[in-house]
Amino acid sequence: MKILVIGGDGYLGWPTALYLANKNFNVCVIDNFSKRKIELDNGINPLHILNPLQTRIADWNRFVKDDKKKIKFYSGDILNQRFINKVLLIFKPDHIVHYGEQPSAPYSMMGKAEAEFTQKNNILGNLNLLFAIKRACPNAHIIKLGTMGIYGTPNINIEEGYIKIKHKGRTDKTLFPMRPQSFYHLSKAADSMNLDFVCRVWGFRVTDLHQGIVYGVNTKETEYREEFITSFHYDHIFGTVLNRFLVQAVTNYPLTVYGSGKQVRTFLNIKDTLQCIFLSIKNPARKFEYKVRNQFTEKFSIIELAQKIKKAGHKLGLNVAIKKIDNPRIEKKKHYYNPINKEFKKIGMKPTKLNETFIVNSLKYLLKYRDKINKSAFYPKVKWKNQV
Amino acid sequence: MKILVIGGDGYLGWPTALYLANKNFNVCVIDNFSKRKIELDNGINPLHILNPLQTRIADWNRFVKDDKKKIKFYSGDILNQRFINKVLLIFKPDHIVHYGEQPSAPYSMMGKAEAEFTQKNNILGNLNLLFAIKRACPNAHIIKLGTMGIYGTPNINIEEGYIKIKHKGRTDKTLFPMRPQSFYHLSKAADSMNLDFVCRVWGFRVTDLHQGIVYGVNTKETEYREEFITSFHYDHIFGTVLNRFLVQAVTNYPLTVYGSGKQVRTFLNIKDTLQCIFLSIKNPARKFEYKVRNQFTEKFSIIELAQKIKKAGHKLGLNVAIKKIDNPRIEKKKHYYNPINKEFKKIGMKPTKLNETFIVNSLKYLLKYRDKINKSAFYPKVKWKNQV
Repeated sequence: MKILVIGGDGYLGWPTALYLANKNFNVCVIDNFSKRKIELDNGINPLHILNPLQTRIADWNRFVKDDKKKIKFYSGDILNQRFINKVLLIFKPDHIVHYGEQPSAPYSMMGKAEAEFTQKNNILGNLNLLFAIKRACPNAHIIKLGTMGIYGTPNINIEEGYIKIKHKGRTDKTLFPMRPQSFYHLSKAADSMNLDFVCRVWGFRVTDLHQGIVYGVNTKETEYREEFITSFHYDHIFGTVLNRFLVQAVTNYPLTVYGSGKQVRTFLNIKDTLQCIFLSIKNPARKFEYKVRNQFTEKFSIIELAQKIKKAGHKLGLNVAIKKIDNPRIEKKKHYYNPINKEFKKIGMKPTKLNETFIVNSLKYLLKYRDKINKSAFYPKVKWKNQV
Repeated sequence: MKILVIGGDGYLGWPTALYLANKNFNVCVIDNFSKRKIELDNGINPLHILNPLQTRIADWNRFVKDDKKKIKFYSGDILNQRFINKVLLIFKPDHIVHYGEQPSAPYSMMGKAEAEFTQKNNILGNLNLLFAIKRACPNAHIIKLGTMGIYGTPNINIEEGYIKIKHKGRTDKTLFPMRPQSFYHLSKAADSMNLDFVCRVWGFRVTDLHQGIVYGVNTKETEYREEFITSFHYDHIFGTVLNRFLVQAVTNYPLTVYGSGKQVRTFLNIKDTLQCIFLSIKNPARKFEYKVRNQFTEKFSIIELAQKIKKAGHKLGLNVAIKKIDNPRIEKKKHYYNPINKEFKKIGMKPTKLNETFIVNSLKYLLKYRDKINKSAFYPKVKWKNQV
């Protein structure tokens, strides 16, 4: 079974590639390194300075020995038609795991150039990919990484992909209405509509995974060796809230809660992301099917989350404070939030819960890297209102 | 009152500019001529070979004499940031009527290059425009031309922009769910989401007009002189169904009905498009308001429409046949279709109905140009399934 991982240099793409290779899938990785280039432009680093992807893949391939577990790599951009056509024609994947998008909402809200890059890279990259697949491997199953953020915070349950609407005595089943919260989330919403369309019209097979906020540093494979670590961010651009809180806690920096902290979000452990990809490969969409799964295990308000970290920090003797700061985003202060996540449970998902042991162990791990942390990267500099 | 018309060379943009100028609005027009370039690439012409826009504007400005009715023009692309920034800073419009998008669904379904051009030109062009407005004239009212086609054919009434959903004992008011029918319609759906977002986040004022299929050749102003005629298409790329049927009828070419012809669509007279723009200027969206109006006057099935033309044609002694051909599109053969259009009625819209007199007069007018018509442009060559 051949699997192409697009965006294999990233926080999730890299451990996904290792995980699938370790399960003896035939894995090929591509990346355009756009995230590393954004890091350069903005003077930010992940926690660990990583070797080039080429080096890490060579290290992995030496480490595993078994040819079946080795990973192939091509460097290039899915916006480059000749590149993606060539990769698909050579590799002929059965499944395509598409992480290859600019993943930061704050980045997309920095200014015009960043908003445009995000929508171009994501929407047109995805569109280009779809045409390449149509030519080279139209039966391949696409596993697309989306985000729960496309839905905003509706006052009704967020069903998985579709909703049955009763209106003036008639009913219809339709895609769940979207109300994205940033130019990044808007790009994912446009992707989803393009994906649904190619299922309806070309008979494509798509699983669109609307993911919550992923947390955690390590997976089974990244722990094999120090050089297999993934790109872990805690900064205001790529650092998502739980990872950032963990890093703030070990540096005696107050946990920066945006606004009231009563915003509720969904979360999942990075290991569960891998599990979800595996389950999606094992339970693919059929031809003409646009399958949506809401991919998360738990939901917390931001303040609830901060309190969990604070409590766990105290057990380690860390002096963790919580500081509410002006919310740089524009979102509801208080809202109903009840996304449904039954689909993964149906196909055997075993959720990893966020418990105190996990938080304590994460803090212990991060304490080793305390001196490497750049505290000035924590504070949100991108304000939703102030784009130019 | 200053009004910028983007896409002022087009079928609707041109008569809109004349109409508003004639009402003593201060009108400025821009265009990137992308539609004329697509005509060149595909060997198609509108019915009348038109002078360059610059010449037509000069003709108009000489004709009206009154300085208040003269039209300004800048040639350029809204994807060009410096161009659109400059135009907005110089002209400082109060209203921006945005027709500046690739308008053909079949074109967007020709192949990869055309799909990509459509989504790039429309989505990124609109995005670039929004950022330019934010800098130059954030209080300007945007009147964006959308399409009813973003909704597909849901089994419930298509409310105007929003719908109240009752689900498991809770309710929410949300954007009406979209299910676009081509890469072109998908681009308009993505535009709509970006527009809704900038209203919510930046306090923009947007009226999004989801238009039905426009028909008709002339408006009051285009009839003043032969050189004021608008770009009227009857070909398989830019020719919409009613206009194409009229032209087929005068050439003894059977009216080509796609599939069963039981597909229902909404329609409006080109004069009513102008009326709707005027009413939208007079009743603008407020700050933070994303206002949606469904812009059409009547609905017919395609076969019903063909029969109307056939009947009117017979009165003129034309031998009009109807021919059902394979549907090149992928759409439901039979479906419920009930879009609501109360919003324009509320603000004083006086609909022009499609009656036999109108059809007979249109046929009489078109008969004069019978010899100029290229019949080989009628037949649909773009099939939704066969993109490469």
